[in-house]
Amino acid sequence: MKGTVYLVGAGPGAADLLTVRAARLLGEADVVFHDALIAEEVLRLAPRARKIAVGKRSGRHSTAQHFINKRLADAARTHQVVVRLKGGDPMLFGRAYEEVAYLGARGIRVEVVPGVTAALAASADLAISLTRRGAARSVAFVTPRVGKGERESRWVASVLAADTAAIYMGAGELEAIAAALIGAGKPADTPVAMVEDASLPGSTVQFATLADLPRLATRGGPTLILLGEVYREALAQAGAQRLRDRLTTSQML
Amino acid sequence: MKGTVYLVGAGPGAADLLTVRAARLLGEADVVFHDALIAEEVLRLAPRARKIAVGKRSGRHSTAQHFINKRLADAARTHQVVVRLKGGDPMLFGRAYEEVAYLGARGIRVEVVPGVTAALAASADLAISLTRRGAARSVAFVTPRVGKGERESRWVASVLAADTAAIYMGAGELEAIAAALIGAGKPADTPVAMVEDASLPGSTVQFATLADLPRLATRGGPTLILLGEVYREALAQAGAQRLRDRLTTSQML
Repeated sequence: MKGTVYLVGAGPGAADLLTVRAARLLGEADVVFHDALIAEEVLRLAPRARKIAVGKRSGRHSTAQHFINKRLADAARTHQVVVRLKGGDPMLFGRAYEEVAYLGARGIRVEVVPGVTAALAASADLAISLTRRGAARSVAFVTPRVGKGERESRWVASVLAADTAAIYMGAGELEAIAAALIGAGKPADTPVAMVEDASLPGSTVQFATLADLPRLATRGGPTLILLGEVYREALAQAGAQRLRDRLTTSQML
Repeated sequence: MKGTVYLVGAGPGAADLLTVRAARLLGEADVVFHDALIAEEVLRLAPRARKIAVGKRSGRHSTAQHFINKRLADAARTHQVVVRLKGGDPMLFGRAYEEVAYLGARGIRVEVVPGVTAALAASADLAISLTRRGAARSVAFVTPRVGKGERESRWVASVLAADTAAIYMGAGELEAIAAALIGAGKPADTPVAMVEDASLPGSTVQFATLADLPRLATRGGPTLILLGEVYREALAQAGAQRLRDRLTTSQML
């Protein structure tokens, strides 16, 4: 076996939120297989490499996982440094398992380079901690699966049991998410912060109660839904600001 | 107000797992207030800065939080770039909330730079994903609080509800953690991976069942306890390896 396949976390979006190691490996890479959502600015860190988009993106054409696995193995037979670049961190909702297992079974060396996951970048944008001493000591990271029977409702139980929750890949199902959580007993007035394009220049933050979550709009960028009591103060401030804006508008009319 | 306070995640330990932004800010920093466990190699990235250790470390002398808050505010009044460097990510178990609130109330500009949290670095060392398509869709990040009454047992509920759990800052209480989780109904044979000094050259990985967790030994480095079915295969392989080692030894005797 010739090369090594590096499963590299590209972080949340901003190019300077890659790790130093990820940036170095991109600079050395012969081939980079990357997710569809990786920014051009990040890919420019790999000037030597042939770049191949293989990532899945909801609603668009994507490459089947077994075909990605095979291409990674083929590349490692002919190149020294093969980078598989994944948004966020490879080991959290990244389907790295399939790639590690496939490559490992063929004796191909695999190294994983961790990255900054979206929930942490969103929390940095908000400047609101996921945890709070004495008040929030557990955080659930979940992907929702709505209306698929009992076994798939474990994400709901996990959100209910944690003080704070970060819901990945839920932007297309706001109504079903709110209904599932409220139906399972999560208070309808639980504060929610929804962050789109975390860490990027056009990043947006919206606050709402869980009951009002379905009213929020997204532009189709990577979106993270955060919920828990740690967002109550920010939700109240956002509400007060909206009220002030409305009063100012009505005085002007 | 003169300067900005940057709450910066230093990542799990290895200097090249800092983000590019964190490394740049350290290079520009006038003052760095850092946790006790930050490696010398990381601090060398801040050649211009006065470096002040303020971090808490269990069992050692530490600086009270209100005194850290005050020193950050004072530094921002006389310096442009003040870095508060925290192990891992600032918004997850980092007590950033107190610092953001204190500085914000005084009109001091605060920016948060996310980092790679220990659970992701440990998962990279293991090359085992926290999640697995169709089988593990939720991860709980918790700090344990053992024997402190009902309200504090929420970390147990959170671990039980999630498919995979990452327990931070639990190395000193292995017996109490195992007892609390098994007592609440977590199967005694749940696979556990304990990773010490994740991402560092001397990093160690130990596998056990939850019932056997108290038998594992730590050297006093930052330690992460991971548990869930995603570790079952690795636990079985580690057990088979130990059996082979034992047979080889007995054949030699």
